[in-house]
Amino acid sequence: MINKFQPMDPDFATRVKNSFAKQKIMEHLGAKIATVEPGICIIELPFKEELAQQHGFFHGGVIGTIADSAAGYAGFSLMPKNAAVLTVEYKMNIMSPGDGELLIAKGEVIKPGRTLTIAKADVWVVKESKKTLCATMLQTLIARTGDPEFIG
Amino acid sequence: MINKFQPMDPDFATRVKNSFAKQKIMEHLGAKIATVEPGICIIELPFKEELAQQHGFFHGGVIGTIADSAAGYAGFSLMPKNAAVLTVEYKMNIMSPGDGELLIAKGEVIKPGRTLTIAKADVWVVKESKKTLCATMLQTLIARTGDPEFIG
Amino acid sequence: MINKFQPMDPDFATRVKNSFAKQKIMEHLGAKIATVEPGICIIELPFKEELAQQHGFFHGGVIGTIADSAAGYAGFSLMPKNAAVLTVEYKMNIMSPGDGELLIAKGEVIKPGRTLTIAKADVWVVKESKKTLCATMLQTLIARTGDPEFIG
Amino acid sequence: MINKFQPMDPDFATRVKNSFAKQKIMEHLGAKIATVEPGICIIELPFKEELAQQHGFFHGGVIGTIADSAAGYAGFSLMPKNAAVLTVEYKMNIMSPGDGELLIAKGEVIKPGRTLTIAKADVWVVKESKKTLCATMLQTLIARTGDPEFIG
Repeated sequence: MINKFQPMDPDFATRVKNSFAKQKIMEHLGAKIATVEPGICIIELPFKEELAQQHGFFHGGVIGTIADSAAGYAGFSLMPKNAAVLTVEYKMNIMSPGDGELLIAKGEVIKPGRTLTIAKADVWVVKESKKTLCATMLQTLIARTGDPEFIG
Repeated sequence: MINKFQPMDPDFATRVKNSFAKQKIMEHLGAKIATVEPGICIIELPFKEELAQQHGFFHGGVIGTIADSAAGYAGFSLMPKNAAVLTVEYKMNIMSPGDGELLIAKGEVIKPGRTLTIAKADVWVVKESKKTLCATMLQTLIARTGDPEFIG
Repeated sequence: MINKFQPMDPDFATRVKNSFAKQKIMEHLGAKIATVEPGICIIELPFKEELAQQHGFFHGGVIGTIADSAAGYAGFSLMPKNAAVLTVEYKMNIMSPGDGELLIAKGEVIKPGRTLTIAKADVWVVKESKKTLCATMLQTLIARTGDPEFIG
Repeated sequence: MINKFQPMDPDFATRVKNSFAKQKIMEHLGAKIATVEPGICIIELPFKEELAQQHGFFHGGVIGTIADSAAGYAGFSLMPKNAAVLTVEYKMNIMSPGDGELLIAKGEVIKPGRTLTIAKADVWVVKESKKTLCATMLQTLIARTGDPEFIG
């Protein structure tokens, strides 16, 4: 696949990884960035008991957390150097229980923009080498460049 | 306020609390149930560094996680004794950064149903005693009663 | 109820009604503005056969159209005089079939903002004088003030 | 592309077209089915003044209406012969104004299911032969087989 987006900042991958490293929650959950390309970010999260809901599967909120970050960093990769990224909103469908040993969230930009970026994320759960699509997210991001009034 | 919903299971509060106790992620994050009433569930989560995104605020995924659980348990409180609850989907708008020392997520049922339940959650962040609405969620739940095919 | 929002433009109601009058689709469907207050807009739509889906009820898209307009004009009522309003996204749950002779959509601002406004709409269907909540919408709006690049 | 879904009803295309013909709103708007395949439905809608919002573009609700029908009929094409389809909820991002002479909505099933089906729709606007993605929708459908209690 030829990547369809041109990053505004050639150092986008470093910028994404540095920002991710500051998200303490990712370390707390155990999530890692697997891939960063222009408009794409893949995050992986191995299962541990602390991430479970009442049936012992990945909690829907955990699935949402890495999907939100994957889509958000996909968008951030295309933003200018001095921009901060904030999630305006997202919607996620959970299609299968998060039953497995690994979650893989792939975030992709649908439409980049100066102010708003629309991104998506697909999340797969891997169980005994079988990959099942377990969730899909649609997300709106806003780029903030030195504006103290974040979102409003 | 007179509560408008009648629980089908008189022991709904115990059932909610028992299920919540099995969500290991809630303990890992540090979340607690503050209130359970028919069709209502309030969850509180004190800030700790492990919950932060890159600017040091509550991560949007963490906000989503407790909103998902609060709305989900609000729905679960009205379901019959033998039902399991699963999140079909949710959509959340983040209106203000999660900047503060405590999150309070209030889940409420909008429309209960035999199969599907529609619920909402509002999330406030508390900073130096000031409460700010930081997110709102709209959610669809499904009740599963002994059906091996969960969602589909 | 004391209205919690102060309009920036004292002529907000006229501005809303003038904009609504330019939405040809509203006339085509037969929708009318019933109420405009700061941060609130109510739209009514009587049933006619042309609005039906396959079971003879109001089509979900019609419900969405008036909910989108009601929430959008609720937001528009709080925007400055020179702003245009655009819908960034919305999410709607349909809770009951649109079976009746009248739809009433009440749009309300949840959080106004200089750039983004978060609004909601509830839609009731009236059948033989009985009002049933049939849908609820959560919506993100953007104010555009003379910017040729609309949303991006 | 090899179609990945097997229809349960070999006469799915006729069933979709018959149901569509009963949606009076589609005729009122001027929408037509262009394609039906297993898990896919494409609807086209030429511009006319009656479909416009205040800037003379396709109204967001009109975009939502044909996206809802396209995704809904994509789902319906995979359901058994005796099932009725109902929209539980949808979320739509509008990425570009609906400025053009034709809308094309392509609905596709993401995950079919006995009870719930998750579908998506992409909508393009065509202006002077140039096709622009203007909206994307994520949708949850429910199959109803002779159950008087529709959704709940």
